Amino acid sequence: MKKNLVIIALLLCSFHSFFAFAEDGYDLWLRYKTIENKTLLNTYKQAVSNIIVEGNSPVINAAKEELQRGLEGLLGKKISFASTPAYTGNVIIGTASSPKLKGLNIRNKLIEAGEEGFIIIKTTVQNKPCIVITANSEKGVLYGCFSFLQLLQTNKNIQSLEIVSSPLMKLRILNHWDNLNRTVERGYAGFSLWKWHLLPSYIDPRYKDYARANASVGINGVVLTNVNASATVLTPMYLEKVAALANVFRPYGIKVYLTARFSAPIEIGGLTTADPLDENVKRWWKNKVSEIYKFIPDFGGFLVKANSEGQPGPQDYNRSHADGANMLADALAPHNGIVMWRAFVYSHEAPDDRFKQAYNEFEPLDGKFRENVMVQVKNGPIDFQPREPFHPLFGAMPKTPLMMEFQLTQEYLGFSTHLVYEAPLFKEVLNADTYAKGKGSYVSKVIDGSLNNHSLSGMAGVANIGDDRNWCGHPFAQANWFAFGRLAWNHHLTENEIADEWIRMTFSNNEKFISPVKQFMLQSRETLVNYMTPLGLHHIMGYNHHYGPAPWYNEAPRADWNPVYFHKADTIGIGFDRTAKGSNALAQYKPEVQSIFENIKTCPEEFLLWFHHVPWQYRLSSGNTFWNELCYKYNEGVTNVRKMEKTWNGLTAYVDKERFNHVKTYLHIQEQEAVWWKNACLLYFQTFSRLPVPNDIEKPDHTLEYYKALEFPFAP
Amino acid sequence: MKKNLVIIALLLCSFHSFFAFAEDGYDLWLRYKTIENKTLLNTYKQAVSNIIVEGNSPVINAAKEELQRGLEGLLGKKISFASTPAYTGNVIIGTASSPKLKGLNIRNKLIEAGEEGFIIIKTTVQNKPCIVITANSEKGVLYGCFSFLQLLQTNKNIQSLEIVSSPLMKLRILNHWDNLNRTVERGYAGFSLWKWHLLPSYIDPRYKDYARANASVGINGVVLTNVNASATVLTPMYLEKVAALANVFRPYGIKVYLTARFSAPIEIGGLTTADPLDENVKRWWKNKVSEIYKFIPDFGGFLVKANSEGQPGPQDYNRSHADGANMLADALAPHNGIVMWRAFVYSHEAPDDRFKQAYNEFEPLDGKFRENVMVQVKNGPIDFQPREPFHPLFGAMPKTPLMMEFQLTQEYLGFSTHLVYEAPLFKEVLNADTYAKGKGSYVSKVIDGSLNNHSLSGMAGVANIGDDRNWCGHPFAQANWFAFGRLAWNHHLTENEIADEWIRMTFSNNEKFISPVKQFMLQSRETLVNYMTPLGLHHIMGYNHHYGPAPWYNEAPRADWNPVYFHKADTIGIGFDRTAKGSNALAQYKPEVQSIFENIKTCPEEFLLWFHHVPWQYRLSSGNTFWNELCYKYNEGVTNVRKMEKTWNGLTAYVDKERFNHVKTYLHIQEQEAVWWKNACLLYFQTFSRLPVPNDIEKPDHTLEYYKALEFPFAP
Repeated sequence: MKKNLVIIALLLCSFHSFFAFAEDGYDLWLRYKTIENKTLLNTYKQAVSNIIVEGNSPVINAAKEELQRGLEGLLGKKISFASTPAYTGNVIIGTASSPKLKGLNIRNKLIEAGEEGFIIIKTTVQNKPCIVITANSEKGVLYGCFSFLQLLQTNKNIQSLEIVSSPLMKLRILNHWDNLNRTVERGYAGFSLWKWHLLPSYIDPRYKDYARANASVGINGVVLTNVNASATVLTPMYLEKVAALANVFRPYGIKVYLTARFSAPIEIGGLTTADPLDENVKRWWKNKVSEIYKFIPDFGGFLVKANSEGQPGPQDYNRSHADGANMLADALAPHNGIVMWRAFVYSHEAPDDRFKQAYNEFEPLDGKFRENVMVQVKNGPIDFQPREPFHPLFGAMPKTPLMMEFQLTQEYLGFSTHLVYEAPLFKEVLNADTYAKGKGSYVSKVIDGSLNNHSLSGMAGVANIGDDRNWCGHPFAQANWFAFGRLAWNHHLTENEIADEWIRMTFSNNEKFISPVKQFMLQSRETLVNYMTPLGLHHIMGYNHHYGPAPWYNEAPRADWNPVYFHKADTIGIGFDRTAKGSNALAQYKPEVQSIFENIKTCPEEFLLWFHHVPWQYRLSSGNTFWNELCYKYNEGVTNVRKMEKTWNGLTAYVDKERFNHVKTYLHIQEQEAVWWKNACLLYFQTFSRLPVPNDIEKPDHTLEYYKALEFPFAP
Repeated sequence: MKKNLVIIALLLCSFHSFFAFAEDGYDLWLRYKTIENKTLLNTYKQAVSNIIVEGNSPVINAAKEELQRGLEGLLGKKISFASTPAYTGNVIIGTASSPKLKGLNIRNKLIEAGEEGFIIIKTTVQNKPCIVITANSEKGVLYGCFSFLQLLQTNKNIQSLEIVSSPLMKLRILNHWDNLNRTVERGYAGFSLWKWHLLPSYIDPRYKDYARANASVGINGVVLTNVNASATVLTPMYLEKVAALANVFRPYGIKVYLTARFSAPIEIGGLTTADPLDENVKRWWKNKVSEIYKFIPDFGGFLVKANSEGQPGPQDYNRSHADGANMLADALAPHNGIVMWRAFVYSHEAPDDRFKQAYNEFEPLDGKFRENVMVQVKNGPIDFQPREPFHPLFGAMPKTPLMMEFQLTQEYLGFSTHLVYEAPLFKEVLNADTYAKGKGSYVSKVIDGSLNNHSLSGMAGVANIGDDRNWCGHPFAQANWFAFGRLAWNHHLTENEIADEWIRMTFSNNEKFISPVKQFMLQSRETLVNYMTPLGLHHIMGYNHHYGPAPWYNEAPRADWNPVYFHKADTIGIGFDRTAKGSNALAQYKPEVQSIFENIKTCPEEFLLWFHHVPWQYRLSSGNTFWNELCYKYNEGVTNVRKMEKTWNGLTAYVDKERFNHVKTYLHIQEQEAVWWKNACLLYFQTFSRLPVPNDIEKPDHTLEYYKALEFPFAP
């Protein structure tokens, strides 16, 4: 016996030393490491010892499998399933209509849970004390199981349970900007997960793990393909591949959506036009959609980018966005499919202010869309900048369900090497008040449908996922995938709560780790804003690839692709005057919002350069001149990255070597790049301000010419 | 104690169930699973219990680390190191000059081992019995350690050890056709391992595992970049990245090489010409090479594809390949670098027979290259077909060291989903007799330098490695990486021996598994030839992407890119007449070889259509007409894939679920594609032969038109 013990112990050691990839981040927040607190472990073991699963279907089996995997890990013991309740330790999962649970008195809770929500309660079943995880739907049961596992993962007290949870948004969707050649537009975590060439025959085991991760945070839809779309994905050969993915995702409650290239009737249909009012075009789409539903009976619908950045669209035929969207919506309606029509448009000619374009084109169309059309609006009016004011379309189209589009992938946020927790950015937008129906008309209420009583509602996140082993490139970028799902489910959660959950599940329940890490996560987005685009600067990064600073760039083929267009620095000051004296973009907001922004005195300083051309010598609330404040903000960004680095480097005892070193290396890159941003921007803006950089700020180690000469030919 | 045991046992179980990726193929043939045979395990444990490592350098430490990792796995026990020999169980590793080993009487063995070889012997050190792993160089010690681990991995008897092993080729090099944007030309295992954007700061842990795998089979060089080269890799920004990779590879005895774009002096040097005789060009390359050596002091040299398929080269300036190669060689010589100049060239105009082009251009240059130039020749005259006759340049350039270029990636061998063990292909070429200096002048003797006393010698393999989790896409494609390394080290090894080693290390030492798997591996290449290109057919695959059959294709911009150019089927017969009555390519071989191939009666049937236009009714040795034989060969290919599938599906007991299912799925794809090849080719060739397909052959399930209409827009 003793000898065996030694052998087993040695084997255990060997598992640790050989599998260098054991902590490579692949498991995300579903690590299910055995509970370290022994007392708690014993409590959990006693409370969870006799598990009964009611039902036998793909979704219920997925829930059961996850429960087994999770509990075996968390409790460190083999889990088998029972069929009848024991005296203690019962956990019963199943829909509310399953034989053992239909007698429970939970009618009101079930109404509250709705179609996708779940209930976790302590009650009695067959006179035995039980933890019951139940729901109206099997999908709800699945979500309930993930939620229950999360309680244990985050070391919550489960002595009394009285949980009813139901998603505030109907559609919680990842947008993959993945191309069929497996490159990912604005992807910084490797290449596309979808191995198109091997589908439908070969099902990469990763597809299932991807679905598990999504389901664990309530994501219920996936757009597989890039908004800059290829019509090829709509051909039968590819639909067969799409169907194979849909089959993997279905047991996890995830619907598949595709991007529809508007000119597909020409490219793969042999028609001579894609005019949405042409009968042949309508018929072609109807047939195509029917064909899709033969392959994928629960197909979700289309996401469309039309007449934007060179994509084809209805305006090519002098039709409106509504004409285009409605034509597709009519084809989808009989199958209960939807259209998500993107509002990210700007005209072929450079407009006076790109800020205004989406509003100008879409606001007049309010009320003209079919019931199964959603208009998908980016969080801000320009393009996923580190900080943007909320998009003026929110609140401006009461008759149309608007979908939020956040960008998880860090196109403008340091690619994959900068640690930026995005929940504060998401929350800032969600909490912004549109005043559409008076005070309290938050963006969150626009998109969850409550402000205007829309039954369709949703949030889209442009995925930050690739085939990197750890999915997201940066170990901390996983937090943004997690936070997106959690907020789409419940936007009342705070960034603090979500960070807490994620850290515990991903790293450790040790407070000595949680506290400092949570602190720098919560600050990280402001830190990034400071070293990249403080005080309302925007879109001053490298042309095309968007990597690194290039505020001097002025050679793009159109004016509003140039950083100089956005910052407008001159010898007087800096910033884009969007007040009535300028482009008057502010007029697109409700008067209450306008009045805050249009007055340089009341405009929040973090938005200043979005709306005002501010003189270099203008005094800010700190007492500093604008120029000095700009210098200090850039400097603060650098300083805070260094603090973050120092904090992390002191946490080596609490995290595995592999992820520790990965984060450490990336923080070092981030620090170097923060310095680069600060130096390049200050040197450049100084050519306009002609003012000295305060002495207490570190001097640049290169000249402006050096920074200007940097090239990144193969930036991803 | 008992309780602990249970907990540990449960933990062990949990390791198995949670880590779904535990058998994902990442570990390659370095799995180091604990020896299953208990008797053998005990023998090994006794023989290997006191391990002493002499020396402390990066290379020795790499050897030590591998030994620890390997022995802990194989012996299932913790390994620590000792400093003095014990009474039994000693293993001592170190160079022959290390204190404990310099007194050994192994002079002759050391001479035999040479610079890179190693010695593994049983002897006594300080009067104690010892297994000694030693060598002249640290690198030799490293190779010796891998070899010793292999002995245990393959369950060899180590009672008496008297091994001296030394590589027959000096350069054993992988050629990565990897682009700086991380796509891989002709790569079917994901994208490039090199994360250029994150280098030099972030060192992916995979780089080290890649180096370990290479070192374990003796590969000592890596060309990082595609032969269709970008000059950008020669800029300081990229050289810093290259240096970071070189730093990881160096302790594993691996030198880094780059591809040199011939026009780099214009593209990144600001010159107006790249003429190799221009003094400014010469100076630019000399300076560039010096710069490279500042970054990478042991840089290996350049691989160059010039004046081929649109690449720039010396002929753009009316200079010869020798002028171009020598100019670069002169720049590299002071640093002991070399040039590998590829012979894969064909003129811009379609020649009468592409077969002859490389010979025509290079044979006259024999004797005109600098001493540090090697000419790298593909195994056959066309382009990595499933079967080619050996390249006529082998044996035709006695004054020039010729390097073999094999293609591991399966460009023409079914991409990543077909199981094809390539060692039989490699061996067939290596064993071919050039008759250059009379009978026995094998290709192997040309390239190992022994035929013409060259000290430079080498073999290159175009890598089949990408960022797929299992490195090579197909679990069995790993065998081709392994076999390449093993043959470059010792081309006398048989394909059978290498397969035996690989199966044992990668899967199992169980004879019930080894025997059937080895059998189908050894047949697999012939199986592929049969269902793709039997009887000497060649280059009849899809245009451009080379995926699937397209013998009908005739629309390429030049004649010799078309399948019809190569098979020349007509109503009389099929095949390319390369005898004196045809293109007379055969004249490029020595008379003894010519005489075998030029006579249709003596020409081996597997090469028939390479050299003869064979009438459909011509009788083969089987008694069948050529047409019937062609039908039966295609059919045999399909039948053998099905046999392979059946065999594999019966082996479920001997292999982990993950890899079992992966191979199973791929074999099913292979079977479907073999049927596709057979049907498409027979239907097409039948339009010329106008003869019936024998009745005992499965009828095609589609029409020729169906096969012709298939398109693969995003084939990798």
